[in-house]
Parts: sequence; structure tokens; C-alpha cells
Amino acid sequence: MKNFWNPLVNNLKPYIPGEQPQDQLYIKLNTNENPYPPSPKVLAAIKLAANERLRLYPDPECTELKNAIASYHGLSPEQVFVGNGSDEVLAFSFLAFFDPDQTILFPDITYSFYPVYAAIFRNNYHTVPLRDDYTLPIDTIPHKNGGVIFPNPNAPTGISLPLISIENLLQKNKDSVVIIDEAYIAFGAESADKLINSYQQLLIIRTMSKSHSLAGLRCGYAIGNKILIEGLNRIKSSINSYTLDRLALAGGLEAIRDTLHLERTSKKIISTRDRVAAKLRELGFQVLPSDANFLFISHSILKAEELYSQLKLHGILVRFFNAPRINNHLRVSIGTDDEMDLFLHKINDICSSK
Amino acid sequence: MKNFWNPLVNNLKPYIPGEQPQDQLYIKLNTNENPYPPSPKVLAAIKLAANERLRLYPDPECTELKNAIASYHGLSPEQVFVGNGSDEVLAFSFLAFFDPDQTILFPDITYSFYPVYAAIFRNNYHTVPLRDDYTLPIDTIPHKNGGVIFPNPNAPTGISLPLISIENLLQKNKDSVVIIDEAYIAFGAESADKLINSYQQLLIIRTMSKSHSLAGLRCGYAIGNKILIEGLNRIKSSINSYTLDRLALAGGLEAIRDTLHLERTSKKIISTRDRVAAKLRELGFQVLPSDANFLFISHSILKAEELYSQLKLHGILVRFFNAPRINNHLRVSIGTDDEMDLFLHKINDICSSK
Repeated sequence: MKNFWNPLVNNLKPYIPGEQPQDQLYIKLNTNENPYPPSPKVLAAIKLAANERLRLYPDPECTELKNAIASYHGLSPEQVFVGNGSDEVLAFSFLAFFDPDQTILFPDITYSFYPVYAAIFRNNYHTVPLRDDYTLPIDTIPHKNGGVIFPNPNAPTGISLPLISIENLLQKNKDSVVIIDEAYIAFGAESADKLINSYQQLLIIRTMSKSHSLAGLRCGYAIGNKILIEGLNRIKSSINSYTLDRLALAGGLEAIRDTLHLERTSKKIISTRDRVAAKLRELGFQVLPSDANFLFISHSILKAEELYSQLKLHGILVRFFNAPRINNHLRVSIGTDDEMDLFLHKINDICSSK
Repeated sequence: MKNFWNPLVNNLKPYIPGEQPQDQLYIKLNTNENPYPPSPKVLAAIKLAANERLRLYPDPECTELKNAIASYHGLSPEQVFVGNGSDEVLAFSFLAFFDPDQTILFPDITYSFYPVYAAIFRNNYHTVPLRDDYTLPIDTIPHKNGGVIFPNPNAPTGISLPLISIENLLQKNKDSVVIIDEAYIAFGAESADKLINSYQQLLIIRTMSKSHSLAGLRCGYAIGNKILIEGLNRIKSSINSYTLDRLALAGGLEAIRDTLHLERTSKKIISTRDRVAAKLRELGFQVLPSDANFLFISHSILKAEELYSQLKLHGILVRFFNAPRINNHLRVSIGTDDEMDLFLHKINDICSSK
């Protein structure tokens, strides 16, 4: 039977998100969700917005939300773009700024959605190999390129770059867009947002999924100079005029405003992460230094894939990537202290039984 | 200053949605929103879903919603794709099924987003001219094409095609995808959903924005054979794994289930539409025969653009398209009876003062 697909579709290898079991039988440490509930103000705002005005289209300009994000970063609203999660913002950015006739660069070990975007939007890419210690050799990035994208901190390693290294890159790389994916910036690394007004080629992308406990609301954004933002607006308005519904707009607004909630929950996660990292090292694990809400770990004897399966049998989901250089690592999201104690307990059992 | 855009972006002429004033000073008859509130069950389900589980990603498969849509149409869940409004589903369909090396076809007067999708996804297109009476000469559509797309009923005319004409087209046009955009199907025309199992090249796209009073929730879907649906899934999973948030999934589910609410509100709109059409004809307007929740009207003496401005001055927004063949028409969405009485009253005043 004929498939009727645009030939492009045959070559796509879509992104596969971490397992999302729809029952509640697992402790989910596999998709970097925040273990704490979103701000009560967010939930209240959504309930209030669940009214008969849902019959009307949302504000296509997302004015209130943009204003709040601009104010949070000390920028102007014209420097803000909002979208349906950072994944959509990333996709639109690939389409807006990366010319298929040039070659873009990203790390060889990074967010595995980047090569998927490159495939669907026909971008050529080269990967920049991480060093053996999984740090990004940012000084070696060639300055002739069609664009650069990397997360800070990187995923799935959790390792962050200091701001001075990012600024060095921006000083040398002036002719193409540099996208910094700050999905995990709330958990200890320094944001490059203070460089926005100095470097017109800098675009920073964020999501409320992890930092604001709103993976289920689909709220992401980009900040950059207003001409970059205009490019994103053109893409969005050529695909879907309204990518955020009235509920996401209402909830996202309160999330950005409740900085105290963000600070409290991030601090708890950082503290749990550092405690768990120390325990894992005691148990013989190598743990990469993480500024994210997850740990990237390996063990010299226990194989990662088997450990993943053992943990799943015991009701704990973590993330295993069957990919070069990282197929003996596990990415473990930071849950509550109770969840992580149970995780450590099970890990200890598995180690002892070997 | 360099714009850093992919050259494609320079050539985009993004879709401009109807005005969405964020105050409540206007009677909005300009974007085909449903004047009646969504089902109370929808609002209740959203409030219930505004809970701490928003910290978790939504179901990327949208299983429950797909099951309900499948059941509503008597299809299997593998024949259903859901997306962030029908605009997103349309965009993904252009990318999934229309090969840029071929030429697609759509009416010269139709949903003005189609040429925008064609521009961003680099599709060549030819337009099929409507007859002088604004009907679509579906029998004249050339069967050598890279795809066909049209709304039924058409927008902004409101004129629908009988099912037999659509089936005739499908019998002759077997080598490319035929997309029927049923955004306005709830208001009187016959759906082609019963042809899905007979024609593997048929894709039907729907939205809950108008029919289910949920423009603010962003819920659209496509139905077709499972290989077409797999094509759409590949596109979506290469752009954004989660395009519907937890609240839209919960609300959309109840909307599809509450068929009684749909039936009641659609009947009211149809009855108001037919009454208003008759009155407008009495006032000397030409009113195209509409199976949609809007009327497309013109007057031999009063100029459409001036009428639009006069109505706006009087607090009533309607839609004027400054485009060939329709720049002396207005599209008037059907509001409540009270709103339409006010509209008729103002129109009468304007007519009398000339």
C-alpha cells in the first residue's frame, strides 16, 4: 500500500521521549520532571481561567505572559517569544535561524532532539566531541558555521559551562546564531541572560517544565534581540497563530511571577541532588558534577542497561540511552528525598547482591 | 543590522488572524467563535486536571482523547491524530503529505492560511477558481497533482459540497492525498468521515474551536487511514512530543463525549444564521447559502470596507478580507440571537442613513 508521504518523512527518526506510563505504579526518575507541585497560584489561576471565555481564541500575542517574562529577565517584551514548551521553541528556532545550505554545530553528547530537528528541517550538522570527562571544549568550536546550539547545563551530563566561556564563544562567533538551551538553568548554573543586550546573535531558550513543575502545561520561551524574536514570530505565525491555550497563558503567568516558589523548590532539589551524589560515590559510582535536576552516573562493574532493568523491576524508572559513549551510563532525575532514599536503598540492594 | 534569518524567513508572509481585542468592548463577529459557552463538563474536567500532576508530562500518545474521537466517528484509534488546534494539524499535514517537488491544488477563495503553509514548507501550488457564484467546480480539478486541500463547507463563503461530489473526486484522484478541512462541519454540511475506510488517500481535519466552543483550548484532530496517521505522528514527534497539555487533553475528552451539548448549540446557531440571512436579504444584501457558523455577505451599494469600519465604530467587529474577488464582501460570524439583533439593528441604521 502506498504511504502517500512526502519523501522527507521516510527518512525521519522521530524523537522518543522517556517512558510515560499512564498508571502510577512507578517512581518516575526518568524524564526530569520536578517532584514538587507547581505553585498553588498557578493552579488557582488555571481554575479561574476554566470559564466560558474558553470559547474565545487566546491572545495571539501572549502579551501578559511576555511582559512578565521580560520583566523577570530585565528585558523588553519585544525580546521575548513564547511557545508550546521549549521543544516547539527549539523547532521553530532551527527553522528560523539555521540555513539548510550551511552546517550547524552541537555537542556529540547532548539533547537527542537536536539531530531530529536537523533531519526534519534539512540542516547539515557536525558534532563537537565532548572531552573524555564529558566537558564541552567550547574554545575549540570552529567559528565558521551556520549556527551553534548546546544546552547549559548540558543534557544528559548535567555539566555546566561558566559564563566567561560562553562570552568568549560569543566574542569569536559573531556571524551565526548561538542558541543556549537553558532547560536546566534553575538548578545551579549561571544564566547567559545578562549577555542578551550585548550579543545580538545570542538566543536563550527556556522551559517551565522542570524549573516550574509544569511539564504538563507546555510553556517555553526564548529571549534574544528583537530581530531574532521577529524571526521566531514569523515562523510561528506561518504554522499556528495560537500555540498556547488560555489555561497555559494564565498558569505560565503566575509561574513566572512566583519567584519565591521557584527558589524554594530549586534549593530543595539541589540539596537532595548533592546528598544523593555523595551517597552514590560512596557506593562506587562515578557521578558527573551536575548543575541540573538529574545525575549522570556509571559504575565500573554494574552494567547500566542491567541496572536500568533491575530498577524498573523494583518500580523505579530511570533513563538509559543506548547511544555511543553513554551506553554505560544512567540518567537519574532528582525526586523528593523519600523517593531518592528508596532509590538509594534499591541501588544498594542491587550492588550487594552482585 | 544583520537579521540572522534562514533566507526562507525573509519570504514569509505570515497568516494574520482576525482582530483579537483583549478588552471586552466589542461584539466579536469576526473570528467565527461560538457564542455559547463550552459544555459545563469540559470546564469541570479542566478544573479537576488543574492539580499537582501538572508537574508531569502529558500522555504523548493522547490515548484517551484519541479513543474518544475514534469512538465518536466509528473508527479505530490508529486512524486518529490529535494536535494543537486544526492549524497545527494542517501545518503538519502539508509537511507530511505534500512533496515540494509537486504541485498542490486549493480553491482561489479559501482559508487564507493554505498559501502560508505552502510558503513555509516550500510547496508549489495552483489555485482552482471558484465559479462566479462562489461554488467549487470540484469536477474540474485536474487529477494529476501533488495533493488537494479544501474546506467543506468552504471558508469564507460558507458554501458546502454534497458528499457525492467529494466521492466522485476521490474516485478519480487516487494518487495524492485529499485533505478535507471540516472546521465548520457541525453547522449543517455532511461529513466525509464515512468515506475514510473506503479511500486511503482521504484525510479529514477538524477542530473543536468552533463546534465545541473551545477556540481558547487549542484542540484539533485528523482522521484517515492509519498510514496517513503514522505520517503525521512522525512529523509531530520530530517537532514536539507533547503538543496538547494536560488541561486540553482533559477538556477535549469531555467535549467529544458531550454530543448533546454539541447538538443543542449547533442547532441554535443554525437557526439564528437562517433567520439573520433572511433579514439581511430583506435589507438588500446578497447572502451566500451558508452551512457554516458565519454568513458571507455583500451589498450592491454599500461598500464592504466602509461597512466594516462603520460597524467597528458601533462596537461590532466583523471580518473584511482585502483580497481579489472578495473585497466587497464581509464575513459575519453568528453570535447569540441578542448579538445578531443588535448587528441587524446597526446594519439597518447604516443602510437607512445612506
